[in-house]
Parts: sequence; C-alpha cells; structure tokens
Amino acid sequence: MSSIPASTAEAGAAAVRSFHPPYVLFLGDVQDKRMAKTASGVYYWVKDACIAQVRLPGCQADLGLPDVTVETARRMGARTLVVGLAPIGGDIPASWVPTLAAALASGLDIASGMHIQLNDNQTLTALAARHGRRMFDIRRAPAGLPIATGRRRRGKRLLTVGTDCGVGKMFAALAIVQEMRRRGLRADFRATGQTGILIAGEGICIDAVVSDFAAGATELLSPDNDVDHWDVVEGQGSLFHPSYAGVTLALLHGSQPDQIVMCHDAAREDVVGMEGYPLPSLEECIETNLQLGRRVNPGIAVAGICVNTSAMAAAEARAYIDATCQRLKLPVCDPVRTGVASIVDRL
Amino acid sequence: MSSIPASTAEAGAAAVRSFHPPYVLFLGDVQDKRMAKTASGVYYWVKDACIAQVRLPGCQADLGLPDVTVETARRMGARTLVVGLAPIGGDIPASWVPTLAAALASGLDIASGMHIQLNDNQTLTALAARHGRRMFDIRRAPAGLPIATGRRRRGKRLLTVGTDCGVGKMFAALAIVQEMRRRGLRADFRATGQTGILIAGEGICIDAVVSDFAAGATELLSPDNDVDHWDVVEGQGSLFHPSYAGVTLALLHGSQPDQIVMCHDAAREDVVGMEGYPLPSLEECIETNLQLGRRVNPGIAVAGICVNTSAMAAAEARAYIDATCQRLKLPVCDPVRTGVASIVDRL
Repeated sequence: MSSIPASTAEAGAAAVRSFHPPYVLFLGDVQDKRMAKTASGVYYWVKDACIAQVRLPGCQADLGLPDVTVETARRMGARTLVVGLAPIGGDIPASWVPTLAAALASGLDIASGMHIQLNDNQTLTALAARHGRRMFDIRRAPAGLPIATGRRRRGKRLLTVGTDCGVGKMFAALAIVQEMRRRGLRADFRATGQTGILIAGEGICIDAVVSDFAAGATELLSPDNDVDHWDVVEGQGSLFHPSYAGVTLALLHGSQPDQIVMCHDAAREDVVGMEGYPLPSLEECIETNLQLGRRVNPGIAVAGICVNTSAMAAAEARAYIDATCQRLKLPVCDPVRTGVASIVDRL
Repeated sequence: MSSIPASTAEAGAAAVRSFHPPYVLFLGDVQDKRMAKTASGVYYWVKDACIAQVRLPGCQADLGLPDVTVETARRMGARTLVVGLAPIGGDIPASWVPTLAAALASGLDIASGMHIQLNDNQTLTALAARHGRRMFDIRRAPAGLPIATGRRRRGKRLLTVGTDCGVGKMFAALAIVQEMRRRGLRADFRATGQTGILIAGEGICIDAVVSDFAAGATELLSPDNDVDHWDVVEGQGSLFHPSYAGVTLALLHGSQPDQIVMCHDAAREDVVGMEGYPLPSLEECIETNLQLGRRVNPGIAVAGICVNTSAMAAAEARAYIDATCQRLKLPVCDPVRTGVASIVDRL
C-alpha cells in the first residue's frame, strides 16, 4: 500500500480532465461502423454539442452530420475535435495525422479515447505546444490522484453496477440522469470510462488508474455536493468478473453509493470471453454489491434493474421484464425500450 | 475495461523482475532506525544472502553486518546493492548519489524499494548504461502485464489475507514457506509488495499496477506449477479497507487460493488512519474472503489465523490465542511467538 498521504480535494480536483463543446466528431477512414462506436455514443447522448463530422476518403461510418474540414468546423464554433475511434494496430494511422495536425493548427483541442496516446506522438505534441492547444488522452490517468479517505461526502450518489462488462452500465447512468433532470432534479453523470468521458467532457478512466489510487480517483469524481444533488456514477466491470472485480470494488467503495442500479444483458449466461464463469443470478449480484457497499455507506439500497433486451422480440422482452419485476419486487427497465422512469420514481 | 487481449504467460513471465544475491544493504545516513525498516526486514529473512552493509557518516541504523565500501562489497562477491530505505522528501538524497554511482561503477546492480525511482535519475541511468548494470525500481510496475484470464492453474496456492493493512501478511507468508520447506514440502513465497520483493529477489508490487491489470499481474506471479507445489502469495490490504479493497480483491481473484490464512493485529480495533471504520470481526473477514474467493476457486478454505500479539505480555497473548482458537475452531498462531506449525499441520 502506498504511504503517500491523501492529497486534499483541492489538489486533486485539477486531475479530472475537462474539455469543451461544441464538438466536431472525427470518423477518420474507418472501414467498419463498429470502429466508430464511441463516436456514435457521443453523438447519441450529446447531439446538441456535435456540430459536424470530419471524414477521410473511404470512410464507411456516417453519423449524418455535415461533412466539413477541421478549419470549417473551427469557423462554425467547434472547440474540440473528438476522436472516438478504435483503430486497428498500435499506432495512430498515418492517414489521420495531417487532419489531427490541421485541427491543432486551426485552434481546436483534441479529445481522444484511443488506446494509443496522442501525447506520445512527437509531431502532434510539438504542434499542440506551438498553437497553445491541448490534447486529452482519455485513457491516460491524470497525475496527482489521492488515496481514498473513506470520508462520507455530502449529496446523494447512485452507482450503476452489473452482472458483467458491457451490459449497459453507462447507458443506464446517462438515461437516469436524463430522467432526473427532466423531473427538475439536480443530477450529474460521473464518467469512469472512455466513452462516458467523451460524452461528459470530463471524468477519469478508472481502469487506467494505478490500483492503489482507484478508490481515491472515484472519490475525486463525486466530491461533496448539495444535499439534494445526485451524482450518478458510471460503473465498470462486475464483482463477479475474474479479471476486473478489483476495479469494480474500488468504484463501489469510492463512490459510496446511496443507491445502486443493477444492469444485465438478458441474453447473456456467461461472463464474456471467460470459460467456466457463469453469470451470477441477479439476486446474488445485488446482495453482494449491497453487502460490500455497506462498508462505506450503511444506508446503501437497490433502486432497480436495467436490462438489455435487444436480442428479444417485443413481447418476449415485456414478459421477461414483468417476470423479473415480480420475482425481485423491484422496478425493472430496459432503458432503450421502456425508459427508466420506474427506477427514478423509487428514489 | 481494457480490450487488450490477455497476453500469453510466456510474454508476461519476463515482467516479474528478478535480481540476484549476494546482497550488500545500503543504510545511507538515515537518522532513525524506522527509516531502515525494509532493510531490516530483508536482513531478518535472507540473512545468508546479506554479506555487508554500507553506511554514510551520521547513519543511526546498524544491522550488525560488516561496514564496507561498495567496492569492497563487490570484491566480497556482492551482486546487488539493496536500498531498503524510506528517505524523507521527494528526491534521492544528494548525499546518497555518489555511493549509488560508485556501486554501479564497481559492478553492482541496485534494487530499490523507494517511492522515488532510480530510473528517473539521469545521472544514475547514464552510469548504469555505461557500466552495463541494472537498477530495479521495485515500486514501478513492469510493462506488458496481462489481463487476468481466470483460468485455473496447476499447483496449490495459499494467500495471506488480513483485517487491515500492516497486520503481518508478509511475515506470515514467509513464516509459512519456511515451515513448509523445513518439512520438505515444495513452496515458494510470491512477493506483492516492496519489502517482500526485496526479500524474494523478484515479484510485482501489485498496488503500483494499473487496476485493469492487477488480477492479471497476480496470475503471472503464481503460474502453473507441479501439483504438489505451494505458492504462498503475500496479501495486501483488506477487503474491508475503504482505500485498498480493490487491490485486495484483485489479489484474491488473481491468486485463486486453495487456502487463505487470516492475519490480524490483536491490539487493533479500527482501520489505521481511517475515522469511522472499525475492523470487522475475524469471522466476518474470513467469511467474506471465502465468499469472494469461491468465484475463482470453489474449493477455497481457511487454514488458520496469524495474530500479532506483540503489544501483549506472554500470558495475555497465550490466553488470547487460546480463546480465539476455541471460538473459531481453527489453528491460531503468532508467527513470532509460536511459529506457524499448527497452520501447516492442517494443510
């Protein structure tokens, strides 16, 4: 364990990286729409902030936004070029570099969710320095993160948790914030993964944080707030995932949730990509999250369940949701099909 | 979660850093024996590998080893200068640099458990390159760590767990390995913290690993082995520690223990340095470790309890150990006062 003392919230606050809309979305020359999944997510959730798209010859992705050059985007008022792509290979594609360089030269910052770091590219860092621009590598953990203090903070917190990775924890958190705000509640989405950060414009990629500081980074993400304010924290992984459970527990402890929302893919029976790891039941997964969460917040409770029923026909999905609701005596939603009103009703 | 595929064990094996005895222990000019606690630990556990000590004028620590220069140590056969100190401040003390430089020039590698990294010091890295020497910064995580696979491995594993940080998990693990070997069992200590690594000559400082890779690093530390071989893995933190529980769970999942040994400081009632966090009971702590450990090893069991009774008089300690043993129906040892024979008997 680190013997570095916990830094003050003030020192750490600077660590939550923040970049600014309006955005222009860079789609590069990706050959497959799935490689632009993150950009699609940004467009889905912050449509009003996305004013244009930049595509290179041969690009197979299209968000339906105006096609512009980076210079035009800047003149239209864009402040940040968002690179929400997953390129193949370990380098920034050479075909992208001239456009990224032109973006910096024209006065745009760049925010990237790629594994490859823009700040490791000397051409780009030199250009950014010359033009006084910033490049946000979302997957790089900020410096100066504190060790978690375990101190209870003011304000209310909800954490989305799950039976596995990739079951809709980010989507559920965003849908809940949207529903809360629609009702006039004060709520903020707290992003912990690359797509969420690109959507929120700030956050910390918790799985990129050194393990000693993972809970501390989560505390930093949801600081003291007004007593009626909700921080809705994007969960990661699962307590039952043999690769990532430590990340999940750090998030559970660091966010000190008053409420959890359990997320699940109705079509999934085993941990994705892991042999011999069946998913836990919803009951077991909820109980384990509550049990471990009580350590930092004795009042922790479950607000409901978000299921992804996209693999089912409408009637089947309805039956599954109803049966799950009856079995668990909790609100059960599919955020896409039904919205999350019944969960927010319960809060 | 990272989408980097799990690397093969072969690729990762190089990541477990390894340095070689005989050692000469560098005590610098520390003003307080406690600042040389790590060096004392190395001397306690690998006495035969420690052939001399190097002290600067004014040093208040003394392990009773021959005082030598680094050049003499090298002539005596030393291969590695071990820096097991916790200097004050954020830099390598200027008074130490000439000796560290002379060590490299005389043909010694250096292994350091300091927060400050030797490899960040340009003078020393240039010298190491010139003389073909290596500097091991124990607290820096190696590159190329894999994501955990969750695959069951051959061989037997024991993990020391605890009610808190600093309750003797490393000491217990080392004592168990010593007792196993005394009986002719095949056992290796697997180090996960800086002192343990300096004692073992290899290992990975798990709390310095990016959280996505913490369980994977632990898998790497205790790879497939012969079916009758024991890996005794040094635990870190506690599942009940609000700062570090994520690290602890990654270790529990990555080590897939067949047996756990619960470590506890008999004089402690609250998590050190945390307000409002009473320690869990031994019963609760054992049950939670078994519950979460079952996910990766359904056969997980508890072999016994190691208590630190150093704050008690002999009779009081005896009574405490007997009462705990009767209450929990498990072997209870103080590794210093009683040894760990009753725990190894049970395996």
